Amino acid sequence: MILEKIVTPEDLQKLELAEQKTLAEEIRKLLIEVVRNNGGHLASNLGIVELTIALHRVFDFSVDSLVFDVGHQSYTHKILTGRKERFDSLRCKGGITGFPNPRESEYDLFLTGHSSTSISSATGLALGKKIAGDNSSTVAIVGDGALGGGMCFEAMNHAGGAGADVLVILNDNDMAISRTVGAFAKHLEEFRSLENTTRMRNELKEVLSKLPLIGDSMDWLYEKLLGALKNHTGAAAVFEAMGFRYFGPFDGHNIEEIENELYKLSRLKGPRILHVITEKGKGYTPAQEDPETYHSSAPIRKSMNCSSDQAIGMPLTPVKTYSRIFAEVMCDIAARNNKLVAITAAMTGGVGMRCFAESFAERFFDVGMAESHAIPFAAGLARIGYTPVVAIYSTFLQRGYDQIFHDIALQGNIPVVFALDRAGLVGEDGPTHHGVFDIAFMRHLPNMVLMAPADSEDMRRLLEFAVELGTPAAIRYPKGEAVNFLPADFVHEDVALGKGEVLLSGEEGTVFAYGRMVAPAYAAVKMLEERANIQLTLVNSRFAKPLDCELISEAVARGKIFTVEDHVLAGGFGSAVSEFILDNISSAVRLIRIGIPDKFIPAANLNQQNEEYGLDELGLYRRFLDEFKK
Amino acid sequence: MILEKIVTPEDLQKLELAEQKTLAEEIRKLLIEVVRNNGGHLASNLGIVELTIALHRVFDFSVDSLVFDVGHQSYTHKILTGRKERFDSLRCKGGITGFPNPRESEYDLFLTGHSSTSISSATGLALGKKIAGDNSSTVAIVGDGALGGGMCFEAMNHAGGAGADVLVILNDNDMAISRTVGAFAKHLEEFRSLENTTRMRNELKEVLSKLPLIGDSMDWLYEKLLGALKNHTGAAAVFEAMGFRYFGPFDGHNIEEIENELYKLSRLKGPRILHVITEKGKGYTPAQEDPETYHSSAPIRKSMNCSSDQAIGMPLTPVKTYSRIFAEVMCDIAARNNKLVAITAAMTGGVGMRCFAESFAERFFDVGMAESHAIPFAAGLARIGYTPVVAIYSTFLQRGYDQIFHDIALQGNIPVVFALDRAGLVGEDGPTHHGVFDIAFMRHLPNMVLMAPADSEDMRRLLEFAVELGTPAAIRYPKGEAVNFLPADFVHEDVALGKGEVLLSGEEGTVFAYGRMVAPAYAAVKMLEERANIQLTLVNSRFAKPLDCELISEAVARGKIFTVEDHVLAGGFGSAVSEFILDNISSAVRLIRIGIPDKFIPAANLNQQNEEYGLDELGLYRRFLDEFKK
Repeated sequence: MILEKIVTPEDLQKLELAEQKTLAEEIRKLLIEVVRNNGGHLASNLGIVELTIALHRVFDFSVDSLVFDVGHQSYTHKILTGRKERFDSLRCKGGITGFPNPRESEYDLFLTGHSSTSISSATGLALGKKIAGDNSSTVAIVGDGALGGGMCFEAMNHAGGAGADVLVILNDNDMAISRTVGAFAKHLEEFRSLENTTRMRNELKEVLSKLPLIGDSMDWLYEKLLGALKNHTGAAAVFEAMGFRYFGPFDGHNIEEIENELYKLSRLKGPRILHVITEKGKGYTPAQEDPETYHSSAPIRKSMNCSSDQAIGMPLTPVKTYSRIFAEVMCDIAARNNKLVAITAAMTGGVGMRCFAESFAERFFDVGMAESHAIPFAAGLARIGYTPVVAIYSTFLQRGYDQIFHDIALQGNIPVVFALDRAGLVGEDGPTHHGVFDIAFMRHLPNMVLMAPADSEDMRRLLEFAVELGTPAAIRYPKGEAVNFLPADFVHEDVALGKGEVLLSGEEGTVFAYGRMVAPAYAAVKMLEERANIQLTLVNSRFAKPLDCELISEAVARGKIFTVEDHVLAGGFGSAVSEFILDNISSAVRLIRIGIPDKFIPAANLNQQNEEYGLDELGLYRRFLDEFKK
Repeated sequence: MILEKIVTPEDLQKLELAEQKTLAEEIRKLLIEVVRNNGGHLASNLGIVELTIALHRVFDFSVDSLVFDVGHQSYTHKILTGRKERFDSLRCKGGITGFPNPRESEYDLFLTGHSSTSISSATGLALGKKIAGDNSSTVAIVGDGALGGGMCFEAMNHAGGAGADVLVILNDNDMAISRTVGAFAKHLEEFRSLENTTRMRNELKEVLSKLPLIGDSMDWLYEKLLGALKNHTGAAAVFEAMGFRYFGPFDGHNIEEIENELYKLSRLKGPRILHVITEKGKGYTPAQEDPETYHSSAPIRKSMNCSSDQAIGMPLTPVKTYSRIFAEVMCDIAARNNKLVAITAAMTGGVGMRCFAESFAERFFDVGMAESHAIPFAAGLARIGYTPVVAIYSTFLQRGYDQIFHDIALQGNIPVVFALDRAGLVGEDGPTHHGVFDIAFMRHLPNMVLMAPADSEDMRRLLEFAVELGTPAAIRYPKGEAVNFLPADFVHEDVALGKGEVLLSGEEGTVFAYGRMVAPAYAAVKMLEERANIQLTLVNSRFAKPLDCELISEAVARGKIFTVEDHVLAGGFGSAVSEFILDNISSAVRLIRIGIPDKFIPAANLNQQNEEYGLDELGLYRRFLDEFKK
C-alpha cells in the first residue's frame, strides 16, 4: 500500500510516477468504499484524484493557498492532508465533514458548500498577500458548472483587472450536477476538441484562398495563423478578455502532464487559468455511466460506524419523496394548464423534474448554476402571462434573496411560485446545505405568501393552491420521504389563504406545527395524552405568512402555545407568532413595536415618509401618548 | 416646441431628422430643469436621450418589450410615453417615480432599481414569447457598469445557449457610477477605439512577415485578416462565446446612425448585442465634467411643488453625513492599523471613501457592481490577516445575502465588518432603494453582530468597536446628516457587546430606540414629559444582536415597552425583542418556540440532528411535558 506511507503531503514527493498511479487507484478504492458506507459525493471526487495528487506535489499548501469551489470534491485532499485514518467517519456525527473545514485542518481555508465563490476568496487571498509582500501561491479549483455562476465572472473580472496573482484551475467534466447548460458550456465543449470554431476557420480559409499561394505554403500559413490566433479566440479569448492567461486544455487524468503544467504555471505570476478535462466517476463504472445519480448519494449499504438514515434518498429502497410528489403534481397541472412553466438551476434530477423536463420540454428551463438569474428570468415569463414555478433547494435559493425582493415581491401581483426543496435540516451535508433560513429571509418581504405541507396529500393541495394564487408564494418541503401519518380516513381541509388546519383538539394548550414538524408533533401530542393525560390542540399551520390570527387568538384563550418548526428560531415561524401575540393580544407585558409596516414604501421625501408612518418626533410622541390614554 | 407635439411614441414617426435633434435638445432642457428642482439621476439620463428616441421610432413598445437595467435612466422614455405633463412631479410624493413603474404606464414592464437584472427578465420575456408564438421584439438596455454584475453573465449565457430572441443594448459610457472597474471594462475601453489588441496585431504581422509578400499585397492581407477575425476577438469574442451576435461600437449620440443600426437589428432574430458609446451628462457641462456627483443629486434649488428635504445630501448646504464620518473614522483607524482594508462596489463617492481611496490606495478595493463577489473577496482578505470593512448601501448588500451566510457567518471568527450606508428609509428613490430589511436578513445568521449608532459620536465609537471585534459585524447608518441631539456635555458610554445605553430615565415605561430613531424618540420622550407629565426611560439600543437582555428585563418590570426602528416590523429589532420577552419572561401568554437554535448545525444524520435539538417525537414530547411540570 502506497497510501499507508502518505502521512503528510510532503510524503508525495518521494513517489515515482508508477507509485503515484498506484496511489491514485488506492485512493479511488478508499473513496468508493467509504462512500458506499457513508454516502457522499462520489463521482466528482473520483474525477479529481490525479489532479489533487499533482497539486500537492507541485505546491506546498501549508504555505500556499488552495480553495475548493463548492468543496464537495475535496475528499482526496482530505485523505492526503492527514485525515486518512479518520476518513471512514466521513459525514458522520463528529466525523470528517464532507466539505473543506478549517476546524479539521490548516489545509482547509474555508468551509464551503455553495458554488462559484472560490475565485472571489482566492482573489482576496492573493491581493492580501500582495499588500503583505507574501510570495506564496494561491490556487482556486472550480468546475465548469460553477463557472456559469455569475460570481466567477465578477471575480475574474476583478482579479484580471487588478492583476491578482491567482491560478484558477478549471476542472471541466462537462457535468456540473446535471449536464452543464448555457452558451459558455457549449463553447467549452467546442473548445474541448482543441479546435477553434468552424466559422473562424472558414473565414481564414476564404481570405487565404485569394492569395497567390498553393499547397504546402497555404497549409503552412493556415496552421501558423491558427496557432498565433488561438489565444485570441474562443474560450481562451473570454478568459484573456478578463485579463487571465489561458493554458489548456489538458487531460486531468494524465498525472505526469498535469504535474508538468502545474509546475510551469507555479513559476508564473498574475491571473492564470489552467483548463483541465476530467471524467466524473472515473474508475467506478456505475458512477461513470450515471454521474448525476452518483453526484451525491446515500449510503449504498448500511455502515457499522455511521447510522445514516436509510430512508433518505437511498437507491436501494426507493421511497416517495416530496421531490417526487412535487414533480407529479407539476406534471398533472401542466397537462391541464398550458401556462405553467418550470425553472430549475442545475438540479433537474435533484428536484425530481426529469419527467417534467421530458414531457413538457418547451416549458422547462434549466438555467445552470445561476440561481440569481433564475428569478428575474421567472419574472419575465410571468410578465408575458406564464406561471413559473422555480424549484431550487432552500439553501441555494439564498443566492436569489435580492432578486426575490426586487424582481418578484416588489412587482406585487406577479405569479411566481418558489418550490423550496431540502427545506429544514438535511443531515450529513451539514451547515452549508441545511435549508433553515428561508422563512427568515422571505417573511419580511411584502406580498410574499409562505407555506409548508404536513404530509404528501397536503403537499399536493398546497402546491395546487400556490399555482392558482396569482401572487408570489413559496412552498418549503424537506428532503426525504413524504410522510402519511394521519388516519387512513382523514381528509385534509381545503386550503384557504392564511388558514391552518386543526388536526387534534385538546383544552390544555395548543401546538402550532409547521411543515415537516407536524408529523412528529402529532405523535408527541398523542404520546402526551396517552402517557400524561394532557390534551393539546394540534394545528397543521400550513402558512407562516399570512398567519392564522384567528386560531392563534383562540389558542391564547386556551393557555400555553407551542410553535414547532425545522427552521432557526430567530426570525422563524414562532417569531412571527411572537410578534402577533405581543402586537395584538393583551398580556402582562405590553410591547408596542414601532417601525415600517409590511408594505413597500413609495417615493416621497424622507420627512413625508417618516410622517406618514409615524416615525418622526410628533408621530412617536402620539404613539407613546396613545398607549397611556388607554 | 417639438416636444409639445409628442403625445404618444407614435408621434415620433412624423419627425424629420432635424426635428429629432431639436427634440433631443428640448428633452435635455426639461431633464435639467426638473432635476434641478426635484433631484434625481441627471448624468445618465442626459446620456441616453438620442438612443431612447431612436428606440421608440424603430420599435413599438406597446407591442414590443423594453427593459431598462437599473431603471434610473428611463426619464426620456417616461417623457415620450405620455408622462411629459406630470414630469415635474418626478420623485415627489404621489408623483412620477424615478424608476420604471408598471403602475404608471403599460410601457414600463418592471419596477427596477437594482442593477444587472434586465437581460434576465428580457430573456424570460423572449422565451415566453417563443412558447406563445409571439413575434414581437424584446430589448434590454444595460450599462457597462451593470454588465460587470455576474447576473448579466448568467443571463447572456442562458439566452445565448437557448437562442433567445433578445436584443441587448450595451450603453457604454465608461462610468457606471464611479468609473467602471475590472478587466472587462478595460477590455471594452481598448475596444472602444475600434481597434483590436496590439498583441494580436503583432502576432499577425510576425506571421505575415515570413511570407514572400511585400507592400500592397501584405497590407491587403493584413487588413483582410483583421476584418475577418474582428468578430472572433476582443469584446466581440466574449459576446460571441456567449452565443450573441455582436454589433458595434456606434456613437450613441448620432441619432441617424443609431436608428439605422436599430432598424437593421430589429429585422434579425436570436441573441444580439448592440454596443453604443454614450457620454454621461451630455449637454450639461457640470454633469459632463463631474458625472459621479451628478449621478444622483438632491435638488439644486428648492422647488415649489416638491418639498424635498434640503438637509439630505444637498450640494448647496454641505452637511456632515454619516458617510463622511464613516470615512473619517476609517482613515483614522487605517493610519494606526495597517491591517484595515476597505472594499466598496462601484460606490466610492457614495459611501464617502474618495479620501480613503487616495490616502490608502493599496488597501482600498472597488470591485465594481459586484456586491456578491465583494463578500467572499473580503473573506479571503480576512483569512490572510486583514480586517476588511465592506461599505455598501443597505439595499445593495441584499445581493450578498447568501455570501454573508456562506463566506462570513459560517466561517465563524472571521473579522469582516459590513458598513451599511443608506439604511432605513431613503426618501425620493423609493422602494428599490430603502434599506429597511437588513436586520431581518442578517439577524438569523449565527455569529453576526448587528449595530446602529444614535448620533455622530456614537457612529465613531461603534465603528471602532466593530473593527476591533474580530467576528462578523454589521453597522447600519442612514442617508443624510449625522445628528447631534444630545446635550453638549453628554458623553457616550463605552461600547460593550450587546449593551444599550440609557439616555433618559423614567418610571412609566421604556423606549428602546435603534439607530436613527433614537434622535426623534429622544425628542418625543422629552415632549411627553413636558406636555403630559409622563416619564419614560429611553435606551439607545446600539445592538439588535445580541440584545441587551438585562435592560429589557428591567424594562418589563417597569411596564410598557416601546421599540422604535426605521426597518420593517416583520423580523426587525422589535421582533427580536418580542422573541426575547415571550421566550424568557413569564407573561400572561406562555409561548414556547421550538426550533433550531442560533448556531450552525454540524453534519450528522438527520435523526441525530433532530434528536440533538429536540425536534423528534420524543424530544417534542419532553418539551411539551416539561411545560406542564412547572
